[in-house]
Amino acid sequence: MVTQDYDLQLLLDILGVFVFALSGGLVAVRKGLDLVGVVVLAWVAGLGGGIMRDVLLGDTPPVGISDWRLLVPAALAGLGTFLWYRHLRSVLPLRADVRAKVIGRSVRVLDAGGLALFAVSGALKALEFQAGALAAVLLGVLTATGGGALRDVLAGQVPEVLRRELYAIPALIGATLIVVGHALDILTPLLIWGAVALVFVIRIAAVALDLNAPTALRTTGDDR
Amino acid sequence: MVTQDYDLQLLLDILGVFVFALSGGLVAVRKGLDLVGVVVLAWVAGLGGGIMRDVLLGDTPPVGISDWRLLVPAALAGLGTFLWYRHLRSVLPLRADVRAKVIGRSVRVLDAGGLALFAVSGALKALEFQAGALAAVLLGVLTATGGGALRDVLAGQVPEVLRRELYAIPALIGATLIVVGHALDILTPLLIWGAVALVFVIRIAAVALDLNAPTALRTTGDDR
Amino acid sequence: MVTQDYDLQLLLDILGVFVFALSGGLVAVRKGLDLVGVVVLAWVAGLGGGIMRDVLLGDTPPVGISDWRLLVPAALAGLGTFLWYRHLRSVLPLRADVRAKVIGRSVRVLDAGGLALFAVSGALKALEFQAGALAAVLLGVLTATGGGALRDVLAGQVPEVLRRELYAIPALIGATLIVVGHALDILTPLLIWGAVALVFVIRIAAVALDLNAPTALRTTGDDR
Repeated sequence: MVTQDYDLQLLLDILGVFVFALSGGLVAVRKGLDLVGVVVLAWVAGLGGGIMRDVLLGDTPPVGISDWRLLVPAALAGLGTFLWYRHLRSVLPLRADVRAKVIGRSVRVLDAGGLALFAVSGALKALEFQAGALAAVLLGVLTATGGGALRDVLAGQVPEVLRRELYAIPALIGATLIVVGHALDILTPLLIWGAVALVFVIRIAAVALDLNAPTALRTTGDDR
Repeated sequence: MVTQDYDLQLLLDILGVFVFALSGGLVAVRKGLDLVGVVVLAWVAGLGGGIMRDVLLGDTPPVGISDWRLLVPAALAGLGTFLWYRHLRSVLPLRADVRAKVIGRSVRVLDAGGLALFAVSGALKALEFQAGALAAVLLGVLTATGGGALRDVLAGQVPEVLRRELYAIPALIGATLIVVGHALDILTPLLIWGAVALVFVIRIAAVALDLNAPTALRTTGDDR
Repeated sequence: MVTQDYDLQLLLDILGVFVFALSGGLVAVRKGLDLVGVVVLAWVAGLGGGIMRDVLLGDTPPVGISDWRLLVPAALAGLGTFLWYRHLRSVLPLRADVRAKVIGRSVRVLDAGGLALFAVSGALKALEFQAGALAAVLLGVLTATGGGALRDVLAGQVPEVLRRELYAIPALIGATLIVVGHALDILTPLLIWGAVALVFVIRIAAVALDLNAPTALRTTGDDR
């Protein structure tokens, strides 16, 4: 039943890889990395979450290293980011702080798209592999947040998933929706795309409205 | 022979997850993370080591994402840390530096407990999966140190396992004891709990007495 | 056909583990880590790439935790680095900045050797496991860069693979050569060692001549 959505799953994966890879490329250019570094970070961000998912499901080798339909979009996104950024600088000479803000916002929007696509695709693939409802929800969240976390750790940033705005919650909602839809046998393409849209909207709203989960205490950095 | 200790293994795992998750939650509140960040870091610290162990053993999906008996303690520990910390601040208004010291010590004691429980449980599970004596010892050490290392990397700290006090050594001793006990066919619950206690005591003694392995040279930070 | 090169594969692995472990040990002593930290980081650097490769190939438990012929060289390299460094300090009292430069260069040469050996051994093992040409190339690159990246993340450095000089490219060339050689059925020991030498020479030339891939823009650090 889930398997007949194989093409849909692939489409979700390709789109997710592409937008996450763009986010990885942007983080890399902002850090001043070279062309190879940009492509590597695009690859890590785009494919990392899916590779973790496949390893945890025991589906080896993961599609993220064996399927050219996922690898090409990731490489193109990295290359595209690099060339576009270089071009942009000459046609649109922004001030450094404005440019930083524009890139920061672009990363977050792309990241929100990847989060939405991967939360859904991760849960779908886990269900296909009979992983159980709980594991399917968690694998959705991990697929959605894993690539971005790896991108941030490699780039020396605290991962987005640990920062203050709602990030894991929308992924959790989306993955849960898929698992519930599967249990009720109502997992239509419409519901699937609806779940993607919902995750994206919640995440964007969280960023735009600066919605945060509560904190226990604000400390001034690492006071260990 | 090992498999009949299944319930014992599960108990070790649940306790280990719980105390490591508490340590993750505490690191997260100290970093000023929000409720979601606290639960995520509790989950990473509590379940990360076991997930690595299961992936390396080929036991997928890992129990750390599929067994609610491990996931619920991790979530409760994260939630509990958050609420307790918030409450503590109002009933016991400590000075920031005192509070930091109290938390730092609590993290280390909890971490020592998780180290002890996971070194033993990791070696036991590896033996159950026929992984060989050497692999069983190393998987014990990895299970014991992996979750904490992941916690520290995500939180932007140098992992405890690389810091100066004896950390990996007690785990190595505990896992070796289990593997030797298994080879001699004397692996009773008493020996198992004795190994847990021994690891805990050595680690706590190392922290309390500031026992360190020798260093080759102290340099002033990263002088690359 | 590939499998008859099993002994050659093991030899490549052992040498790769040894030089990468030396690089890990050196990074650790430079950071002022103790004996255990030095051995742990040597182990991570030497065995991390191969463990990732094996997990992605589904070959569990990975040889990096079960085969003493790989574990002993890693431990010896860590121990050796520690003792040698301690001794060196007393017989050859260099100024701190000179010493830092010497170590930095040694790390890079050793790292180049490991890169060359692991790019080739990673691609060979992937072919043995029928992983497909694309996956074999990428697993070669991942095996070659994974251990060093893990070493750098744990030590709190930006991974070498993301820095400016050509790093992933030589590994990519070497792994591709192996995969092409395998497809053409001309994979002799001579070609294999030739590929190792080629990767090493390209990488060393890149460091020596400061060859870099182009950058899109130099920014002053993290301007997010």
